[in-house]
Amino acid sequence: MTRLADTIAREFGTPAVVVDLDVVEANVTAVQALCDRLGLANRPHIKTHKSPELAKLQVETGAQGITCQKLGEAEVMVEAGLNDILISYNILGEQKLRRLGTLLERARITVAADSATTIDGLATCAALASQPLPVVVECDTGMKRAGVETPGEAVALSRRIAATAGLTFAGLLFYPPPDGWERTQRFLDTVSSGLHEAGLTLSIVSTGGSPNLAHLGALRGATEHRPGTYIFNDRMQMAAGVATLADCALTVYATVVSRASDTRGIVDAGSKTLTSDPGGLDGFGLILDYPKARIAQLSEEHGFLDLAGCDARPLVGEVVRIIPNHVCVVVNMVDRLIAVRGERIVGEIAVAARGRTV
Amino acid sequence: MTRLADTIAREFGTPAVVVDLDVVEANVTAVQALCDRLGLANRPHIKTHKSPELAKLQVETGAQGITCQKLGEAEVMVEAGLNDILISYNILGEQKLRRLGTLLERARITVAADSATTIDGLATCAALASQPLPVVVECDTGMKRAGVETPGEAVALSRRIAATAGLTFAGLLFYPPPDGWERTQRFLDTVSSGLHEAGLTLSIVSTGGSPNLAHLGALRGATEHRPGTYIFNDRMQMAAGVATLADCALTVYATVVSRASDTRGIVDAGSKTLTSDPGGLDGFGLILDYPKARIAQLSEEHGFLDLAGCDARPLVGEVVRIIPNHVCVVVNMVDRLIAVRGERIVGEIAVAARGRTV
Repeated sequence: MTRLADTIAREFGTPAVVVDLDVVEANVTAVQALCDRLGLANRPHIKTHKSPELAKLQVETGAQGITCQKLGEAEVMVEAGLNDILISYNILGEQKLRRLGTLLERARITVAADSATTIDGLATCAALASQPLPVVVECDTGMKRAGVETPGEAVALSRRIAATAGLTFAGLLFYPPPDGWERTQRFLDTVSSGLHEAGLTLSIVSTGGSPNLAHLGALRGATEHRPGTYIFNDRMQMAAGVATLADCALTVYATVVSRASDTRGIVDAGSKTLTSDPGGLDGFGLILDYPKARIAQLSEEHGFLDLAGCDARPLVGEVVRIIPNHVCVVVNMVDRLIAVRGERIVGEIAVAARGRTV
Repeated sequence: MTRLADTIAREFGTPAVVVDLDVVEANVTAVQALCDRLGLANRPHIKTHKSPELAKLQVETGAQGITCQKLGEAEVMVEAGLNDILISYNILGEQKLRRLGTLLERARITVAADSATTIDGLATCAALASQPLPVVVECDTGMKRAGVETPGEAVALSRRIAATAGLTFAGLLFYPPPDGWERTQRFLDTVSSGLHEAGLTLSIVSTGGSPNLAHLGALRGATEHRPGTYIFNDRMQMAAGVATLADCALTVYATVVSRASDTRGIVDAGSKTLTSDPGGLDGFGLILDYPKARIAQLSEEHGFLDLAGCDARPLVGEVVRIIPNHVCVVVNMVDRLIAVRGERIVGEIAVAARGRTV
């Protein structure tokens, strides 16, 4: 058990979600440098940290602005002084359109849309705003999530936006699957031709995803990238080959609370801390102190350790360090992160937009 | 789209976690009546609702006290005036033992232990308390979670507790697997004999789990049960055969935000609302309005709908009602529940112990 683990358990109790700011700063700087070198604007996605403090760090390091997934996240960020925000989501319903209208008067907001219904709703909200609302068309090139599936639909929606009072057509939003960059290029090229014929200009061509950092620069015509996870990294990022253990800034400290048999144990981090998101990986986290242990299963407050493969095994009361599979969902479980630099505790970071899914 | 769905979206936005208090009260009353009929104390587990208001409803309906999984939950409940709490967890580490010591002065607390390490820690904390701390021995009869695996260990720990200044041996804590009640009976009978020889008395024999409600009364010698999920119920409870749709009090209201193709759609409830906990079921929830739709996959803020099997399909902007797989983890994602009675909104319930995992 490291001295820091002991201190964290003593001062904060476990489970504790801890970030190393030295690693955070190195990650933020490295991705900013990559974007700068490729001539891409960096617009980090704050869904990973949900912290205005860390968003400001990203902007101060050179990011053009930030990306939020939900309106509620954007509200928290605007309140904290962030002023250039892309909401990469279809905003629908009068409650949200009313809130969006309020936000438009306070910051430079761009929103995404993938349907006429969304665009028509945005128009009602923009009609009351003092400035036109920039809208990007969300396009799907393989994730099968949100986004129009064909260049023809993308062009049609772009024209609809451009023809709508109060809205400005701003460009295209992509989240290419890691193996889908060539397809994305063909999609973009076809849309570009269609827009040219329509007399429309592409200001923004935005791509997303930290796992896609390895492909950055591959899309001719891209103007910006929206990486999220890179600020902390996790097992998924390591599995994607875009981070090493040294790049992982976030660690869950957990106490071994039970060792009912020789080959198994329980830690006090379950699905209400690590979450049940497997991230496509085996087990629910990597225990740094016992890398051969497997977090085989979770119940709400229990992490089930399979210790059969371990030579040394932890005792009851020992505090272990876990790199989670997916940091974005872990951060969303807690109200604060404990900030360290190396072995030194330096403060706390409020997860101010935690749970802001509305 | 129901009128209530429309109202909830308009007043609160989506995703919204909604509970019907008429159904809640019926569930609370029914399980209390079952326990009363069987002569068992009811000690509901508040991990499901994390709300002092609902805990008080349970106690006012006849529950002997409540169960908390974590110390932080117990602190919230004591602060709100609940005064008889079983913490069904090994409390370890000086930070928590200090907090437990404070709590002992404010309420009647019982704690669980499955190791000498835990017992010895509790002793240091109880030494400073004005009254002895009752401790139950956690026993495992098949869940392979926390709990000693053999009757011999259970007897040894019981003796250790009884022999420790400041602690009182209070009994045994079980969470029998649904198919493990006969095994639990044999375990209990063997421990009882051992305790009898040691001159120790079993005050509490506690069993847990809402899926186990079907087996209640099966364990001779049991004194109390700790059901959690029954207050709201969910798809897991229905799958376990202990609830029907009419017993499900909690619904997630979500908006269809994208319909990029004829056979698929996206709702605004993803893993940060429904959570990735599959609960052993297919898909991540039951859409009441489109029961043939499948919530096939989640990303953080997107629920991926497979609509291929649906005759009618929702439009963008439509609000749908989802019964989640596992309510306990869904409640933990939000700060408040919207309370309704039938089609009428009646207020909000604070999830005061949300995120209290420490």
